[in-house]
Amino acid sequence: MEIPYKIYLEESELPKQWYNVRADMPNKPAPLMNPGTHETATLDELSAVFCRELAEQELDDTNRFIDIPEEIQSFYRMYRPAPLVRAYCLEKALDTPAKIYYKFEGNNTSGSHKLNSAIAQAYYAKKQGLKGVTTETGAGQWGTALSMACAYFDLDCRVYMVKVSYEQKPFRREVMRTYGANVTPSPSDTTNVGRKILAEFPGTTGSLGCAISEAVEAAVSTEGYRYVLGSVLNQVLLHQSVIGLETMAACDKYDIKPDVIIGCAGGGSNLGGLIAPFMGRKLRGEADYQFIAVEPASCPTLTRGKFAYDFCDTGKVCPLAKMYTLGSGFIPSPNHAGGLRYHGMSSTVSQLYHDGLMEARSCEQTSVFQAAEQFARIEGILPAPESSHAIRVALDEAMRCKETGEEKTILFGLTGTGYFDMVAYQKYNDGEMSDYIPTDEDIAASLAKLPEV
Amino acid sequence: MEIPYKIYLEESELPKQWYNVRADMPNKPAPLMNPGTHETATLDELSAVFCRELAEQELDDTNRFIDIPEEIQSFYRMYRPAPLVRAYCLEKALDTPAKIYYKFEGNNTSGSHKLNSAIAQAYYAKKQGLKGVTTETGAGQWGTALSMACAYFDLDCRVYMVKVSYEQKPFRREVMRTYGANVTPSPSDTTNVGRKILAEFPGTTGSLGCAISEAVEAAVSTEGYRYVLGSVLNQVLLHQSVIGLETMAACDKYDIKPDVIIGCAGGGSNLGGLIAPFMGRKLRGEADYQFIAVEPASCPTLTRGKFAYDFCDTGKVCPLAKMYTLGSGFIPSPNHAGGLRYHGMSSTVSQLYHDGLMEARSCEQTSVFQAAEQFARIEGILPAPESSHAIRVALDEAMRCKETGEEKTILFGLTGTGYFDMVAYQKYNDGEMSDYIPTDEDIAASLAKLPEV
Repeated sequence: MEIPYKIYLEESELPKQWYNVRADMPNKPAPLMNPGTHETATLDELSAVFCRELAEQELDDTNRFIDIPEEIQSFYRMYRPAPLVRAYCLEKALDTPAKIYYKFEGNNTSGSHKLNSAIAQAYYAKKQGLKGVTTETGAGQWGTALSMACAYFDLDCRVYMVKVSYEQKPFRREVMRTYGANVTPSPSDTTNVGRKILAEFPGTTGSLGCAISEAVEAAVSTEGYRYVLGSVLNQVLLHQSVIGLETMAACDKYDIKPDVIIGCAGGGSNLGGLIAPFMGRKLRGEADYQFIAVEPASCPTLTRGKFAYDFCDTGKVCPLAKMYTLGSGFIPSPNHAGGLRYHGMSSTVSQLYHDGLMEARSCEQTSVFQAAEQFARIEGILPAPESSHAIRVALDEAMRCKETGEEKTILFGLTGTGYFDMVAYQKYNDGEMSDYIPTDEDIAASLAKLPEV
Repeated sequence: MEIPYKIYLEESELPKQWYNVRADMPNKPAPLMNPGTHETATLDELSAVFCRELAEQELDDTNRFIDIPEEIQSFYRMYRPAPLVRAYCLEKALDTPAKIYYKFEGNNTSGSHKLNSAIAQAYYAKKQGLKGVTTETGAGQWGTALSMACAYFDLDCRVYMVKVSYEQKPFRREVMRTYGANVTPSPSDTTNVGRKILAEFPGTTGSLGCAISEAVEAAVSTEGYRYVLGSVLNQVLLHQSVIGLETMAACDKYDIKPDVIIGCAGGGSNLGGLIAPFMGRKLRGEADYQFIAVEPASCPTLTRGKFAYDFCDTGKVCPLAKMYTLGSGFIPSPNHAGGLRYHGMSSTVSQLYHDGLMEARSCEQTSVFQAAEQFARIEGILPAPESSHAIRVALDEAMRCKETGEEKTILFGLTGTGYFDMVAYQKYNDGEMSDYIPTDEDIAASLAKLPEV
């Protein structure tokens, strides 16, 4: 069968249920833990911070499929299906016998896959009768996605944006404002934790850890509000399974059998969503795939971190999660892939990696941008720095096939576009980009401060 | 038949020929004229500035269909088909009996329909054995599209970017550089005309007219180069007919019969391309449609201009064209829809308008951004300021249907996204946007300087 350049599923073929990979995992991801008592976090505890139904999804490791509410399906139809693209031009340019496919999640105004979970979380907040939600954003992709979702459901959206990003990425901020979000530079004087930090460090430009703490405080101290998060959590991976389900349906429809599946990994939301149903087949013994998580060498969570319980935030207010981590105090060296700078990794992805069901690689920044530029020129899409980590490894794998003559089918997740990351491209274009890799001592020092559990 | 949210044609259904509306026009657009002799411009004269085959297309008003070369079809398949979207959410939010559709051309890295002609012009340049092409860009959409096209065909691309845009829109510039283009702020010391202007006005921030003059000089004075243009010309409208052909194929497939077809109009490339095949049916008496061109009130070419021969550029180096014009010396008042600030209009669109085959309306800037914001929040796509002119009139028409109860089918062209226009959105969000409308005296003064032909 001839494969088109882009496979768009029919609307009738779109997933009507999310797939919960935890149901098929022999070793379940370890439960969240109360940071004070070190007991397993309960539904009631989680429901004080998250919407009730989302907390239920967080704890559910037995139901294989969960219905996607019709309202969410309806929103998905505005920007989905995302195309599964056959990279004919790239294959030709590389002169490789490999077949290369990518699932492109960037064809929406948030510019990434983040919208898949944002709309779900906004829906459950609306259904619960809440007035609004709070969150933090660093690079701004998640904040943008949540703003769009909240505008759709007429929910108030309060975003704490790391001050340095607020000032250096004014355009991201304006997209959020256009969608009606209230964007506050963090640290701010709107929360106790913000005021405390401002008093202690008057000139601080903020951090993701601080912004999380402010967003959580704002949620639990405001009637009718909850906190929402764009990655790491099981519920987020569940929603993101729509990526993998669509990809698998398109592959099955055209009899495409991927050998290697590659995704960039920050908190694990895209990677976890892309691989989920394929991993399910592998776990059930129905098929086999090579899965590769790609992370920046500057924040090598899987490749150099430790599998242990740790804080999810630097403010240490959230539950503890068992995951690969570099320590919640780990400060990644400067890196333009803001979405991949998290110290930890989704518990689900961590468990799968720990069980030897997937691999991980780390890439240096300049080689990632070299891949991004090459891809942009050949395939016509200017990728996000985060996504370009997956491109780097896909190119490497394709070139290896050229050496060996193997006709492998390579599939990777292209999570988004880089239109709001041109400062990074400018550095690369000007030859001013550098690579930073933490030393063993840096990582050991950070890991020494893991909580004793 | 149930209409999906988004109609994507199959690759086998994509147009294999462009449609040349001039072939069906009883009154052909007037020919280009040599600015010195006032004689009709010949193929040889045009070929000194443009690629030979493009000059032939420019003069061809008899062939109804022109084959799209396979290499261009192949590139089109990387980002086309563009979806024809049924705006279900918008219809619901407006509570209108009207059916609203839009053809969305923004799903590519150039962010607009400009790529449709850029790749064609780059192809013919490559085929002619040229080393490269030159062009000018104001807002940057066209320059971006041409950079992408040249990267694909490995052609040198020299872009003269109006200095004020070069400095204020660094991200557009960086996208072009990422695609390997040589971007020069205009006026520059690389051309005679640039040096002359710099000597005369040392602090000037440039103008589109000056940038055109530099680009033309660079092309004709460099061995193996030609000049290319992103709008206004007949050849550009020919390439852009791919928009209308896809739209018509999708409409026919789902038995959608548009009553009103709306497009924003700057030089006329998008509007002309969108309406072309529908206009063909109207001209041949096979169907009837209401066509509406929408322009900014600050640059009201069709609604307040004169139908006459005029210079296409302020430098007066290009051929004269018969068109609706405000005079080549007309300085539009500040407006964020940079792509709609041209003093003239495509000769083809001008002739159709002059013959009463279509209408025109002008909109003020703040009401355009109000429509843009409403659309973004409901349909999830943050539109370009240019495209938002069409949205404004589509919303007006839909609300009129609500009053009258008419179940009209409204179709408009959504030419692109506004991701590089956030400065404009910021002004709107901050309540600092204003409306400027030229006085009758302004326009009369500019029109007094039309060339005597």
